Amino acid sequence: MGIHKFFTSLNDLERINRAPGRFKFEEHNVAAHSWKVSQYAMFFATLEEMKGARIDWKILYEKTINHDYGEIFIGDIKTPVKHASPELKSMIATVEEKMVENFIDMEIPEEFKAVFKNRMKEGKDSTIEGRLLELSDKLDQFYESFAELKRGNTDFEFVNMYQIALKKILEIPLPTSVDYFKNTMLRDVMNENTTIDLTELTKEVIKDA
Amino acid sequence: MGIHKFFTSLNDLERINRAPGRFKFEEHNVAAHSWKVSQYAMFFATLEEMKGARIDWKILYEKTINHDYGEIFIGDIKTPVKHASPELKSMIATVEEKMVENFIDMEIPEEFKAVFKNRMKEGKDSTIEGRLLELSDKLDQFYESFAELKRGNTDFEFVNMYQIALKKILEIPLPTSVDYFKNTMLRDVMNENTTIDLTELTKEVIKDA
Amino acid sequence: MGIHKFFTSLNDLERINRAPGRFKFEEHNVAAHSWKVSQYAMFFATLEEMKGARIDWKILYEKTINHDYGEIFIGDIKTPVKHASPELKSMIATVEEKMVENFIDMEIPEEFKAVFKNRMKEGKDSTIEGRLLELSDKLDQFYESFAELKRGNTDFEFVNMYQIALKKILEIPLPTSVDYFKNTMLRDVMNENTTIDLTELTKEVIKDA
Amino acid sequence: MGIHKFFTSLNDLERINRAPGRFKFEEHNVAAHSWKVSQYAMFFATLEEMKGARIDWKILYEKTINHDYGEIFIGDIKTPVKHASPELKSMIATVEEKMVENFIDMEIPEEFKAVFKNRMKEGKDSTIEGRLLELSDKLDQFYESFAELKRGNTDFEFVNMYQIALKKILEIPLPTSVDYFKNTMLRDVMNENTTIDLTELTKEVIKDA
Amino acid sequence: MGIHKFFTSLNDLERINRAPGRFKFEEHNVAAHSWKVSQYAMFFATLEEMKGARIDWKILYEKTINHDYGEIFIGDIKTPVKHASPELKSMIATVEEKMVENFIDMEIPEEFKAVFKNRMKEGKDSTIEGRLLELSDKLDQFYESFAELKRGNTDFEFVNMYQIALKKILEIPLPTSVDYFKNTMLRDVMNENTTIDLTELTKEVIKDA
Amino acid sequence: MGIHKFFTSLNDLERINRAPGRFKFEEHNVAAHSWKVSQYAMFFATLEEMKGARIDWKILYEKTINHDYGEIFIGDIKTPVKHASPELKSMIATVEEKMVENFIDMEIPEEFKAVFKNRMKEGKDSTIEGRLLELSDKLDQFYESFAELKRGNTDFEFVNMYQIALKKILEIPLPTSVDYFKNTMLRDVMNENTTIDLTELTKEVIKDA
Repeated sequence: MGIHKFFTSLNDLERINRAPGRFKFEEHNVAAHSWKVSQYAMFFATLEEMKGARIDWKILYEKTINHDYGEIFIGDIKTPVKHASPELKSMIATVEEKMVENFIDMEIPEEFKAVFKNRMKEGKDSTIEGRLLELSDKLDQFYESFAELKRGNTDFEFVNMYQIALKKILEIPLPTSVDYFKNTMLRDVMNENTTIDLTELTKEVIKDA
Repeated sequence: MGIHKFFTSLNDLERINRAPGRFKFEEHNVAAHSWKVSQYAMFFATLEEMKGARIDWKILYEKTINHDYGEIFIGDIKTPVKHASPELKSMIATVEEKMVENFIDMEIPEEFKAVFKNRMKEGKDSTIEGRLLELSDKLDQFYESFAELKRGNTDFEFVNMYQIALKKILEIPLPTSVDYFKNTMLRDVMNENTTIDLTELTKEVIKDA
Repeated sequence: MGIHKFFTSLNDLERINRAPGRFKFEEHNVAAHSWKVSQYAMFFATLEEMKGARIDWKILYEKTINHDYGEIFIGDIKTPVKHASPELKSMIATVEEKMVENFIDMEIPEEFKAVFKNRMKEGKDSTIEGRLLELSDKLDQFYESFAELKRGNTDFEFVNMYQIALKKILEIPLPTSVDYFKNTMLRDVMNENTTIDLTELTKEVIKDA
Repeated sequence: MGIHKFFTSLNDLERINRAPGRFKFEEHNVAAHSWKVSQYAMFFATLEEMKGARIDWKILYEKTINHDYGEIFIGDIKTPVKHASPELKSMIATVEEKMVENFIDMEIPEEFKAVFKNRMKEGKDSTIEGRLLELSDKLDQFYESFAELKRGNTDFEFVNMYQIALKKILEIPLPTSVDYFKNTMLRDVMNENTTIDLTELTKEVIKDA
Repeated sequence: MGIHKFFTSLNDLERINRAPGRFKFEEHNVAAHSWKVSQYAMFFATLEEMKGARIDWKILYEKTINHDYGEIFIGDIKTPVKHASPELKSMIATVEEKMVENFIDMEIPEEFKAVFKNRMKEGKDSTIEGRLLELSDKLDQFYESFAELKRGNTDFEFVNMYQIALKKILEIPLPTSVDYFKNTMLRDVMNENTTIDLTELTKEVIKDA
Repeated sequence: MGIHKFFTSLNDLERINRAPGRFKFEEHNVAAHSWKVSQYAMFFATLEEMKGARIDWKILYEKTINHDYGEIFIGDIKTPVKHASPELKSMIATVEEKMVENFIDMEIPEEFKAVFKNRMKEGKDSTIEGRLLELSDKLDQFYESFAELKRGNTDFEFVNMYQIALKKILEIPLPTSVDYFKNTMLRDVMNENTTIDLTELTKEVIKDA
């Protein structure tokens, strides 16, 4: 019991691959994903701050680095399952939360229990930090599918993942960030030399947004 | 839609690793696991038949090679989760079944739908073939943890998995097979030159059985 | 000596990769291959049975799961070698058989020796089960090369393997199964979105069949 | 040019392995390492804050997630080299900095240049956040070598890395955090069931600290 | 200390990957690279000898198999870094040399010290053997990038590496070898069926040579 | 057809793993093995030359880098097979030779055919260079099994491989080299800190030599 146990548990997330079972030219683990999410979030928070928003950096830091810690207990359940049944999706979320709580009760010393419980709870709320997490998490799906399509992965799942992530990003109520993504970054994305042409796939989504 | 789609889906199980997130000296995928299970089952069915039991070989063949097909949709959810809550365990089983059914409805041609639905349903029933499947599935957990302990994996999870698998095997109501395992095979297991001593770990379980 | 030794030997086939030395986007091991072969065979046997054939399911089960066990001793010798010299091909088959026999003599308990020898012998005979094994084994070569061509592997060996497997499947004297493959499944294969166009490669072979 | 380019560059750090050339039972990449460092730092900053220190969370967040970004250009140069010559060590640091600056000048849009330059500079200064970064970075060396020793890696380099990381941690001028590590966490470390006994190795360093 | 230590150190070069951090369809380690370089050099030396040159085979053998031994100490520093600053490039070369010397002083028995120092020093001098090494080392960069482009790797770095390696090969003052490469081998290269068309990329460089 | 084809074929040996099917903590490919053999041979040839022997360095260079080229066609057939039947062993050697010859006839330009045929033939003859090759090839088996035993691989095959390689080295009629190995290097081997104790295993063989 103790912080040593918590620290060694982090290593487990280096062994949980994202999107298990799909053919990919490159695997990504949940630890590295969490780092990339924390990078995207820092950039967009900076942009929002420049345009006048107030960011609680401690909360953003907590949300991004902890948002997938629960996968230590439950793994990266395949996305289709999460969406197959709203009942299951919510059940899985509940179990994940309970297992995290249970871990905290058993392993985390008394004086840190409250802090850990607060930090580990679902972070995608309607605060600006919650929305930045939502945006950044989807953006990593966008970039993971982008990298596969760029290298010629013709599996339909990645085309699908690319368009769904794109659509969800465009709907997030963070106008400054979403505008920057849409008007500045997507232009660079479409200019890349990719094996599968992304311009059409991207435009299909944009015109419906 | 069609059998071609079913055949290409088999490849997905080569990419789903067993026990994701744990440190292992050697990874095992669900496709190879299914093959080993079909080998164990064939041996114990042969033994049972020699001692007078009647085996329906077609059913045994169907049960063993299909018993983890549902993991194509749901992945190999971490064992602790399955046991954390009986409610979740049953919910997960239900969803897995529904996703398999849904796949069959959408992809399998009409004339094969009934056959596939029958084949893909949960196989661990109280028939002799169902029990041989149960035994063989646990035996692969036994051998996967055996191989890790033999090579010196000191993570507690594998000691645990070894003892739980052993205990469950000894409780399966297949006296001929369980006796053979207990009295003949376990002796060879304990005689192996392993980094972590298995004699004590094994005896602890046997004496309580 | 004993069944424990046989069971642990199965793990070796998870470490023998198919077609060693060739560049592949995805590796396949002999254990997972054996499972896929047992799946294909079960489907085609079901189809044959529906059309009136009689299947001995125990024999089919034995043939499919054991057909590459001998590679534990000899590895997956490169295909070109097998065909380079009929003399060597037959010599290699002989040695493989002798090594399996030798293993059975040394490791398998007396009461199971006859059963094991029968099970492990070359399964591709002229019975319907033997032909289903032949079809299923070639079908896995077809699907392994299909997956490489789909992802853009331009190495000539996979074009070659694709066309040879296709040609051999079409020649197997199992009209019901071969018709289904040719008239139903190949249509779906050619409709797939693949990096290397398979329609031409497929038609070249079909028109000569 | 642009933020899209910066975001895709993050993927490169998933492909740079730590301590290249050494035999390890498990590889770690720089992206996952950066995430673990950000987790350790958050914990110790929380502890320091509880004991009355003031933490600038934005700066800590920036320091931890960006501290190894420069390895995109220079790779993870082997530690012995870094210490072989103080002249080289400083030269390498200079070049790394210049390449990061150069990247920012070429790729980062004007309005973000100053922010990026500030964020990417060497973070291990004498502020409390700089010291928390130093502690966390060393702690990951400690945990990486701990995991190898636990699994029985007898290569001298990991014994060495373990003791050097431990020694450096104990010298960092952050008494609250170092006390917690020394008096609470190290006790749990020494209680672990490891293949190579860590108690002696740990005590040798502690008694000299 | 001793030759045993030197021999076990060779294993380290099997773990150092070439061009770390770049996405590749296939990784190459420094040990295998050294072998391929020794093969290319043997061929071109044979060609030069046929046309009347005198080759010191012992020196060629020494140069090719030892030319990257120093990477044991310093890793495969990313190419862009090597060229970012001539000052750093020379500094890195100096340090690499010093670390090799230091290793020889500490580990190699007295009677072999001089031989090892001579063998391990920078081999790309203006002798014919030095030039054959230079040609062969560049040729492996050419073939590594060729294999990536052939399989459809659209990352700009490999297009770049292909053209730079080609350009440098054409400038090496070994007319017989370079003519053979340019007039005989490049024709075969351009005739290959590759995902990314190499004819244009190749001709761009040739016409400037 | 041509040297380009020969050069690209070298890449295949990077994908053929040594001792396929065995559990190993670390894999080795045939290309890297060939390089290590060329390193061992250079050292022992140097030693022999110092003691007065005459070495033909060109021949030694040819023998060591080409000695396993034939595995491109035939793979690394499992060692037990090679020794199971002297008839097969010789048959396999014949076929390997014929496939190499066949490759040379088809792919190598006329003017180099004789050189290639000479270079690629079995190198382990009774010349001093042939014996140095034999010693070096066995020494790599010695070091591959040494590394596994050092890390705690308890599989009997590596104990066996270690002792057989050791025994064969001691029998090679190269007294100077064998003495150096036996009296100088083995002492260092036995002094290493290894998980499996090598002193006993080594002495058992030495006392019979």
